Amino acid sequence: MIDRDRIAGLNEAWAAPLQEDLEHLAGRLDRRNGTSADDLVSALADFDVAAPSWAVGTGGTRFGRFPIGGEPRNTEEKIDDVALLNRLTASNGTISLHVPWDDPDDPDGLREYAEERSIGFDAMNSNTFQDNPSTTDDGKLSYKFGSLANADPAVREVALEHKKYVIDLGVRLGSTALTVWLADGINHPGQADHTTQFERVAEGLRAVHDYLPDGWQMFTEHKPYEPAFYATVNSDWGSSLLLAQAAGPKASCLVDLGHHLPNANIEQIVSRLAMAGRLGGFHFNDSKYGDDDLTTGSIQPFQLFLIFCELIRAGEGRLPALAYMIDQSHNIKDPLEDLIQSTEAVSIAYAQALLVERDALLEAQTANDAALGQHLLQDAFRIDVRPLVAEARRVKGGAIEPLAAYRSLGYRRAMIEERGLASVATGL
Amino acid sequence: MIDRDRIAGLNEAWAAPLQEDLEHLAGRLDRRNGTSADDLVSALADFDVAAPSWAVGTGGTRFGRFPIGGEPRNTEEKIDDVALLNRLTASNGTISLHVPWDDPDDPDGLREYAEERSIGFDAMNSNTFQDNPSTTDDGKLSYKFGSLANADPAVREVALEHKKYVIDLGVRLGSTALTVWLADGINHPGQADHTTQFERVAEGLRAVHDYLPDGWQMFTEHKPYEPAFYATVNSDWGSSLLLAQAAGPKASCLVDLGHHLPNANIEQIVSRLAMAGRLGGFHFNDSKYGDDDLTTGSIQPFQLFLIFCELIRAGEGRLPALAYMIDQSHNIKDPLEDLIQSTEAVSIAYAQALLVERDALLEAQTANDAALGQHLLQDAFRIDVRPLVAEARRVKGGAIEPLAAYRSLGYRRAMIEERGLASVATGL
Amino acid sequence: MIDRDRIAGLNEAWAAPLQEDLEHLAGRLDRRNGTSADDLVSALADFDVAAPSWAVGTGGTRFGRFPIGGEPRNTEEKIDDVALLNRLTASNGTISLHVPWDDPDDPDGLREYAEERSIGFDAMNSNTFQDNPSTTDDGKLSYKFGSLANADPAVREVALEHKKYVIDLGVRLGSTALTVWLADGINHPGQADHTTQFERVAEGLRAVHDYLPDGWQMFTEHKPYEPAFYATVNSDWGSSLLLAQAAGPKASCLVDLGHHLPNANIEQIVSRLAMAGRLGGFHFNDSKYGDDDLTTGSIQPFQLFLIFCELIRAGEGRLPALAYMIDQSHNIKDPLEDLIQSTEAVSIAYAQALLVERDALLEAQTANDAALGQHLLQDAFRIDVRPLVAEARRVKGGAIEPLAAYRSLGYRRAMIEERGLASVATGL
Amino acid sequence: MIDRDRIAGLNEAWAAPLQEDLEHLAGRLDRRNGTSADDLVSALADFDVAAPSWAVGTGGTRFGRFPIGGEPRNTEEKIDDVALLNRLTASNGTISLHVPWDDPDDPDGLREYAEERSIGFDAMNSNTFQDNPSTTDDGKLSYKFGSLANADPAVREVALEHKKYVIDLGVRLGSTALTVWLADGINHPGQADHTTQFERVAEGLRAVHDYLPDGWQMFTEHKPYEPAFYATVNSDWGSSLLLAQAAGPKASCLVDLGHHLPNANIEQIVSRLAMAGRLGGFHFNDSKYGDDDLTTGSIQPFQLFLIFCELIRAGEGRLPALAYMIDQSHNIKDPLEDLIQSTEAVSIAYAQALLVERDALLEAQTANDAALGQHLLQDAFRIDVRPLVAEARRVKGGAIEPLAAYRSLGYRRAMIEERGLASVATGL
Repeated sequence: MIDRDRIAGLNEAWAAPLQEDLEHLAGRLDRRNGTSADDLVSALADFDVAAPSWAVGTGGTRFGRFPIGGEPRNTEEKIDDVALLNRLTASNGTISLHVPWDDPDDPDGLREYAEERSIGFDAMNSNTFQDNPSTTDDGKLSYKFGSLANADPAVREVALEHKKYVIDLGVRLGSTALTVWLADGINHPGQADHTTQFERVAEGLRAVHDYLPDGWQMFTEHKPYEPAFYATVNSDWGSSLLLAQAAGPKASCLVDLGHHLPNANIEQIVSRLAMAGRLGGFHFNDSKYGDDDLTTGSIQPFQLFLIFCELIRAGEGRLPALAYMIDQSHNIKDPLEDLIQSTEAVSIAYAQALLVERDALLEAQTANDAALGQHLLQDAFRIDVRPLVAEARRVKGGAIEPLAAYRSLGYRRAMIEERGLASVATGL
Repeated sequence: MIDRDRIAGLNEAWAAPLQEDLEHLAGRLDRRNGTSADDLVSALADFDVAAPSWAVGTGGTRFGRFPIGGEPRNTEEKIDDVALLNRLTASNGTISLHVPWDDPDDPDGLREYAEERSIGFDAMNSNTFQDNPSTTDDGKLSYKFGSLANADPAVREVALEHKKYVIDLGVRLGSTALTVWLADGINHPGQADHTTQFERVAEGLRAVHDYLPDGWQMFTEHKPYEPAFYATVNSDWGSSLLLAQAAGPKASCLVDLGHHLPNANIEQIVSRLAMAGRLGGFHFNDSKYGDDDLTTGSIQPFQLFLIFCELIRAGEGRLPALAYMIDQSHNIKDPLEDLIQSTEAVSIAYAQALLVERDALLEAQTANDAALGQHLLQDAFRIDVRPLVAEARRVKGGAIEPLAAYRSLGYRRAMIEERGLASVATGL
Repeated sequence: MIDRDRIAGLNEAWAAPLQEDLEHLAGRLDRRNGTSADDLVSALADFDVAAPSWAVGTGGTRFGRFPIGGEPRNTEEKIDDVALLNRLTASNGTISLHVPWDDPDDPDGLREYAEERSIGFDAMNSNTFQDNPSTTDDGKLSYKFGSLANADPAVREVALEHKKYVIDLGVRLGSTALTVWLADGINHPGQADHTTQFERVAEGLRAVHDYLPDGWQMFTEHKPYEPAFYATVNSDWGSSLLLAQAAGPKASCLVDLGHHLPNANIEQIVSRLAMAGRLGGFHFNDSKYGDDDLTTGSIQPFQLFLIFCELIRAGEGRLPALAYMIDQSHNIKDPLEDLIQSTEAVSIAYAQALLVERDALLEAQTANDAALGQHLLQDAFRIDVRPLVAEARRVKGGAIEPLAAYRSLGYRRAMIEERGLASVATGL
Repeated sequence: MIDRDRIAGLNEAWAAPLQEDLEHLAGRLDRRNGTSADDLVSALADFDVAAPSWAVGTGGTRFGRFPIGGEPRNTEEKIDDVALLNRLTASNGTISLHVPWDDPDDPDGLREYAEERSIGFDAMNSNTFQDNPSTTDDGKLSYKFGSLANADPAVREVALEHKKYVIDLGVRLGSTALTVWLADGINHPGQADHTTQFERVAEGLRAVHDYLPDGWQMFTEHKPYEPAFYATVNSDWGSSLLLAQAAGPKASCLVDLGHHLPNANIEQIVSRLAMAGRLGGFHFNDSKYGDDDLTTGSIQPFQLFLIFCELIRAGEGRLPALAYMIDQSHNIKDPLEDLIQSTEAVSIAYAQALLVERDALLEAQTANDAALGQHLLQDAFRIDVRPLVAEARRVKGGAIEPLAAYRSLGYRRAMIEERGLASVATGL
């Protein structure tokens, strides 16, 4: 484990220019509308976005997978990677597990292991889209035709049991939420009935909801297609809302940025769910075509900013306490570098959104002043907020330049030596 | 007005081949699974789809409009056109008005005029997306920045008043429904707030709903974009459902086939709204890119069939009594020819959907037999049902071949003489 | 191997109704415009569409794969499956191999094996999108960052060598074409330069082209995304055309129906490439969202028909002699059932396109008669041509009802016994 | 006309903060990699983007148009508006005319009028998508079914004559280019033949090309749909390239940012056309759904930046001398405010692209270092370059804050008084 002093040592070279840029920016923000840079840094320092356990390995596509080497071989090593990440970014203090990819023999030991590394457990995920003996009654059943929506009640039952198992596991780890993304759907018109499938899933989610311990939440996550290519059961935010409402008060909706039809206005969807009182959380990533799972902010940074504007609008000036998580598939990059870049992009969007002059915006909107409304958003977006984000990292002991710091630490090389070149982490 | 004898006369030439094809088809359907062709013809003969008053003129795009000549100059002449259409198709017995494009001085007289031509009044439409002195307080206000969502309460009020006015008018005409499509939305990020706009529209629709007379219905119609190009208030079926729920029990959702994002699964949306008890009606048309308003069934006939399959599923074997309407823009065709082709396409899709072996399908779905499920839908779709549709027209006094009949009647030429070459009907 | 007598025996039960339907249809076509049903059956009987070796196993997605059991364990068994398929459909007389998924030790023996089963070898495919010791210099190199477009000249060289190897193999098998689909592209803006990548691929394809034996063809196959999710090198038909032109006169473009952006007009693309003299062939499948690889004709049958209309237009009334192949991924169906359904759909579309009254269409188009032009296409599409297609199969010794015949043969059950439940064919 | 002193006076209040920000930025750029802020300002000051004559009036949609008042009543007044715009931005020194919307009786007088206001004439546009007596043989013909692609040779001829007329007019005005966007296409499958239409357009463009005077260029502009909703003749960059090649060496392709299918990679298209030696120019705007004609950079600013990166790559470090033009439709904003915002966005994207460290990028790409390649682009994009852009305006006599300056000048109010509230400029 890299200790804080090593990061502090690296920071020395970057401290002076950061200080210079920060001072200029602080002056500019003060001149602009009296905004305090310190308050912004403080808000940014409070922000945390979870890392998924399956994103510290290289993901793949159906066309192939290219492991990078040194990938974590078990959940402990995934926690090691996230701990290193968090040391650099100071913004990734939790990990989200996916069961049975992660299925610790000793949950209490794992929790202790994570605590020693200052890592907590974010929402749990339960895999019922792949066949695994531990989730399919020793291989007697299959999720080929769905899990909670399956025509076969025995498959629905085993899927439900797995979700309960994951909740139990989460309780021991200190997690307080379950994210439910289902691959259930239809590949060929005629294969199944839309309404029947939906009702089965609604019933299953009600049962999961009723099993949730006090203080727990459940997130329904929609996606229009893949792996089902004609229709999915939880296909869009409207379906997700109906499912969350059917499940019960602890259920709300999770928005994955890549799970939308072409041209969808995602920020508006965020506002809809917030308005309906059922916005639960996010899976951050970016995409150009479908569920491409690219680095957050790498394709549509302005959209990411607009989403954070909606969040701050929903929180009346502050970021609401939702479940924020990165969910990407790092096919060709070092996964940790990708997570560093995504975390940076999320923090930048958040900082920009904090800079929007909300009172002036409300005034422009009340006056139907479209040009001014646009100007106010663009003005915030165009400010280079990186000094604020870097300072927020620095004050928490993170790296001023996390990507450069990561490279200079030689972590990947060390892991290849330790874990081997051929290690392949579980995940997609 | 073309009398029935003239149609009957034209039918003579087509009667023998129809009879031959019908007999063969009846035998085949009986052989297949004992289906009665007579029952099918009877169901088809009961089907009616409304014609919109604005679709008997040539529509246009922002790039231009090319009037065909002989277009109706007032609502009476629109009724004349629909009456001729209905004489040919025997399936277009109602007209849907759009106010103030249609704003009769003498509603009772208009109703009588229509009754004499066997035409009834379908859902009323209220135009608050264009500025017209009669709807904008003599031009003192404007819908430039929206109607029910406008930041200006005076505009919201005048829009509400117009909707009430249209309901009052509809009552006198014998209509029992109001369709609400709003152009309200946002062109530029920052111009308006998604949630605020939505709440204003919800409040307006509640007020409209409370004004509805007994026995009336209100339809909310969603559309993702155009004329607002960043976001619309009623953007998708989820929003439409929330708005209908907010308005009250007489409100349900209307699905326009062209009002969806690329790749949307419209038949699934139909099933969702039916499941939620809020499926109200349809605007039929077809499209390849956006709200292209092309002839129904001309681009995606299989999708139209799948939609009718969902309808018959929702009606447990029968078509539910919803508001079925064509809504197209006939830029380069004779509008009446286009309506003939669309009505035929709708009837064909309905007939095909009636042919699906529902029990066998349920069995295949219960057995997760995807290949058989697909086969059962395709089998119904591939049957040439036109003899059934033609026979349903014939028994109601319509034309066996309506397009050919229309052409041989010389109606357009006569109208050009009567109404002039330069007449331009109101509409888009 | 199922012998022809067994098929003939099964056909007995279906022969009488087919005869009845065929006679009626023949009469109707003759009455319509003097079309000879015999000529149509004869044209359909001449049609053949290749089966891909990788489609006789269940494909999968990055989320999982669900083997059906009894999948072929080697290329010989793939040929067995295709031979059975061809016995049923009488339209799948060739197989397309993918190397190194198929890499026979004894090519001459394999050729003989196939000939004994009346199966020929269609276009060869060379896999340079996955790492395999046999194609990556014993694993010293990787296609992680592309093959012919790779920044590393050693990788480009090894990819080129593999393509030459596949051509050599194809020569021994009796194939006469190489299809080149490359996964080369960019996942993150900045990762590579569009122009540089393109030029490298153009250079590589020229080298492949120069290696082609006399009488051979090369097909360039475009795809906009997946597995590269920001950009691909051969991204669209325009790029594919430029690459084919750069490669040389033996190169032409192959159109996979799933490799297009949303809303693309694929039939127009077909006409463009035919006009440019570079239309080489097809990969048939269907899709709703992206490269979904669904059963051909299961989502957009009218589009498939329009594509065949363009083909017959390009062939001035006859289907041009291109490379026609199915390319699907049968995730949840029995692959052979899926191929049966796809082959049927392709034949139906071809038959419908043959029924278009081309002279009348030309006349309508010359007169700008849009309604009539549409009517003429729809009229052909709406005719139930299945009797023609079934008769074409029957006269060649195939099954009148291939899906039902396949099921009654118990082939899958037999293969599970012979090959085992856990056998997994190579492929996606 | 607003004189320069008035702008200089307004600038006084903004000069000090600009100076402060500029100095800081200059220091930072120098520290970063020795970039000279002065050189950047100088490059930006050389940049000019044309304003379209039809964009100084409020555009509209088929659903309505909402004039703002004070719109120019003739071409002279359009020039006045562009001259004011250019005074503020110092980057809009040319106007692009659209004939017959602009059809001066006295071209020489108009040229003199423009010169007195320091405005030149950019590419000419010829309207053959609307019927106008001056372009349709006194209304005897119609462009309803297309212009150069029309089945009627008389229509093709009159369209060709109009294009020649516009070239002649352009010669007198001092323009040196003709932009050809055609609405030609197909609304209904069957209406026309793709290949025949294409060949007619190719023939027409050859004739136009042969008529071009020495030193002139012709731009072919593609668009996939609208107003034709099934297919267009010049539908995509591939078609546009074939048409430009068919026309001759003076023809190249113009890219309108809104004329693409969903998810298209426009920057890659730019690189393709540049590679093929046929990149001619741009119509800048932004969009979320289709040809939305929104303010440039208001939806996808990162895409705009990537496009400029491709341009600078094509120019080997410098912006190539192409035809750069804004083409938007300002439905609900003051058109001049919208043009100010678009011009600013274009300049910002250009400035950011100039900041990309090209050598480092090439190195990263050669090393397949995807994370670093992404970082280098994002780093440039995230810098707040507005001080450079503002300084470039200031040194040329423009306004430091053009939007605020425009508002303080009261120009719109003055124009409403002078031109009236009901004036409506020609255009969409």
